[in-house]
Amino acid sequence: MSDSPVIALAKDLISRISVTPEDAGCQDVMIERLEKLGFNIETMIFEDTTNLWARRGTEAPLLVFAGHTDVVPAGPSELWHTPPFEPTIIDGYLHGRGAADMKGSLACFVVAIERFLAENPDHPGSIGLLITSDEEGPFINGTTRVIDTLEARNEKIDMCIVGEPSSTHFVGDVVKNGRRGSITGDITIKGTQGHVAYPHLADNPVHRAMPALAELAATTWDNGNDYFPPTSFQIANLQAGTGASNVIPGEFHVQFNFRFSTELTADDIKRKVHSVLDAHGLDYDLKWTFSGHPFLTDEGTLLEAAVEAIEEVNHQKPELLTTGGTSDGRFIARTGAQVVELGPVNATIHKVNECVKVADLEKLTDMYQKILEKSL
Amino acid sequence: MSDSPVIALAKDLISRISVTPEDAGCQDVMIERLEKLGFNIETMIFEDTTNLWARRGTEAPLLVFAGHTDVVPAGPSELWHTPPFEPTIIDGYLHGRGAADMKGSLACFVVAIERFLAENPDHPGSIGLLITSDEEGPFINGTTRVIDTLEARNEKIDMCIVGEPSSTHFVGDVVKNGRRGSITGDITIKGTQGHVAYPHLADNPVHRAMPALAELAATTWDNGNDYFPPTSFQIANLQAGTGASNVIPGEFHVQFNFRFSTELTADDIKRKVHSVLDAHGLDYDLKWTFSGHPFLTDEGTLLEAAVEAIEEVNHQKPELLTTGGTSDGRFIARTGAQVVELGPVNATIHKVNECVKVADLEKLTDMYQKILEKSL
Repeated sequence: MSDSPVIALAKDLISRISVTPEDAGCQDVMIERLEKLGFNIETMIFEDTTNLWARRGTEAPLLVFAGHTDVVPAGPSELWHTPPFEPTIIDGYLHGRGAADMKGSLACFVVAIERFLAENPDHPGSIGLLITSDEEGPFINGTTRVIDTLEARNEKIDMCIVGEPSSTHFVGDVVKNGRRGSITGDITIKGTQGHVAYPHLADNPVHRAMPALAELAATTWDNGNDYFPPTSFQIANLQAGTGASNVIPGEFHVQFNFRFSTELTADDIKRKVHSVLDAHGLDYDLKWTFSGHPFLTDEGTLLEAAVEAIEEVNHQKPELLTTGGTSDGRFIARTGAQVVELGPVNATIHKVNECVKVADLEKLTDMYQKILEKSL
Repeated sequence: MSDSPVIALAKDLISRISVTPEDAGCQDVMIERLEKLGFNIETMIFEDTTNLWARRGTEAPLLVFAGHTDVVPAGPSELWHTPPFEPTIIDGYLHGRGAADMKGSLACFVVAIERFLAENPDHPGSIGLLITSDEEGPFINGTTRVIDTLEARNEKIDMCIVGEPSSTHFVGDVVKNGRRGSITGDITIKGTQGHVAYPHLADNPVHRAMPALAELAATTWDNGNDYFPPTSFQIANLQAGTGASNVIPGEFHVQFNFRFSTELTADDIKRKVHSVLDAHGLDYDLKWTFSGHPFLTDEGTLLEAAVEAIEEVNHQKPELLTTGGTSDGRFIARTGAQVVELGPVNATIHKVNECVKVADLEKLTDMYQKILEKSL
């Protein structure tokens, strides 16, 4: 049995070793197909990152498919049942690094657009593709810089489908219609180093800080809302001590991360954290790293189209969730665009033997095509 | 001006590079002097450690001078004003590694005994010296094994003067008449690793443990007593996390140390720690490392003799303290012996430019001689 168009394209992309920030020619494969469809192609190279901005049409509304060609490293290939960059179908599953995250989705994008345009050559509005090779990396020179470029020339995205693997058990069981915000704090609590035999000459920053950290860990930051789970505080790393059992440490380093809902802002969080630390009389340095505001698409043409499209294919409505990590959707949502994330099952992503069900990629192509039909 | 006998001997010892566990011939220098005085000499070599047990007389009471010939490393010699193993007197201070800790004391031992025997050749009781080359190291093959040997043959020490640098501002201002106990706990608190975006799938051991650790840090273990400061709990080291800001750690490692008074036993401490950890419902492994029981000599011939001897030399009574780190005195005290520590000012020990006041070594020799006279 020969491969279907979507599987053939997915295999072509998987066979290219595009570990972040490498694109390894993946975008060229897509460009070849998109040029034939009348897309205007712009390759935007920022530092080590290759980005593709393709658009067909000049009218509003502009519906964009967003995704990435880069993949995380395969790790030791001897742990894989099949070579990670040699796409292989076993028992109805396409195996290979990037099969689910997210070269499968890229193939679905292209084939869905081809089919839509074959039936609707004169559709209203415009179709775009925003593809980067830096989604798994530091996300500095990828989607965010393409968005900066588009905004600078007043090119406005109205709706965006992010092809990230949003699904849990079967394709389309979950649509992500937003994501929590993320902010990280790196704190150094200062004390005075000394010998454990002379505690009165030292000031143990661990002892000082513990009640404050316990209070932060026990705090209810909010109760979430209809779309967001409650804001979560987690200590990710902490270290103190010289290694010697007879030395009271002079400094205590703690790194914590917040995933926060739309009930709070990053500033609310910062204020509250400082007030707890200050109330405990700590001497500290605190450096914040902001990764993204929370965003939410709770209504609109795109979300309705996605829900209807999925229901037509699956005979079952998707669940709308905002759980999980951040995604490039945050850079697009900040322009005011409606953003939904719809892609394959994420059970094997970033793991050995990453795979995606062949039938799911066919269904996903149908879903994308129906969303185009319903939105434009 | 030529050096006095005690300074000449101290210089001879300092010039030998006896970094732990090396003795570098120091004990031979002492043996040569002690043999002339009629001491019976036993060299006990255990693994890499050279120990000297010298005894003159067979009757009780047995008064022992205890000390060590090994020194801590000098560190970068360019930081020293004088070469660390070339003893040099500058402005009334004898400089060199080991000058204060404790080759100066060893010289005082020998000269004090020589003078005492010249005046009291037929004294009652016996005099001993217990000298090791492993006091600054792991203290496995030093004093503790000599004590084991003596105990196995029922050779009983009644009184022991440890020559460790006990003094703070001038020689004899402080006598250590005991030391706190020391016990270390290494605890691993177990949780479930996970992604910070999915806290409900993980179990952060740091969050779980913090209230328990805060409770331990806030606990009053005892109020000390006439001779001991309150028992002290200190977290010396702690670590959790993979280094990534988006991973909830699966384990939390904490090392803490107790310095404890005679108001508590090691078992009391263990019981209380476990009860706090258990009350907080923690899943943990806890490994204890016991370094020494507290010991105390709060009365008796030796302590009285030491206080009187110091008062006669200094016209001022010493302060009796049990502060500071552990010492080899703990191995001798466990046999039931009276133990006091009396030695030079400790301000420069283990540092560059270690030094001792020349006049203090002369006074210390007088003190040791007077203690011999008053005790035997």
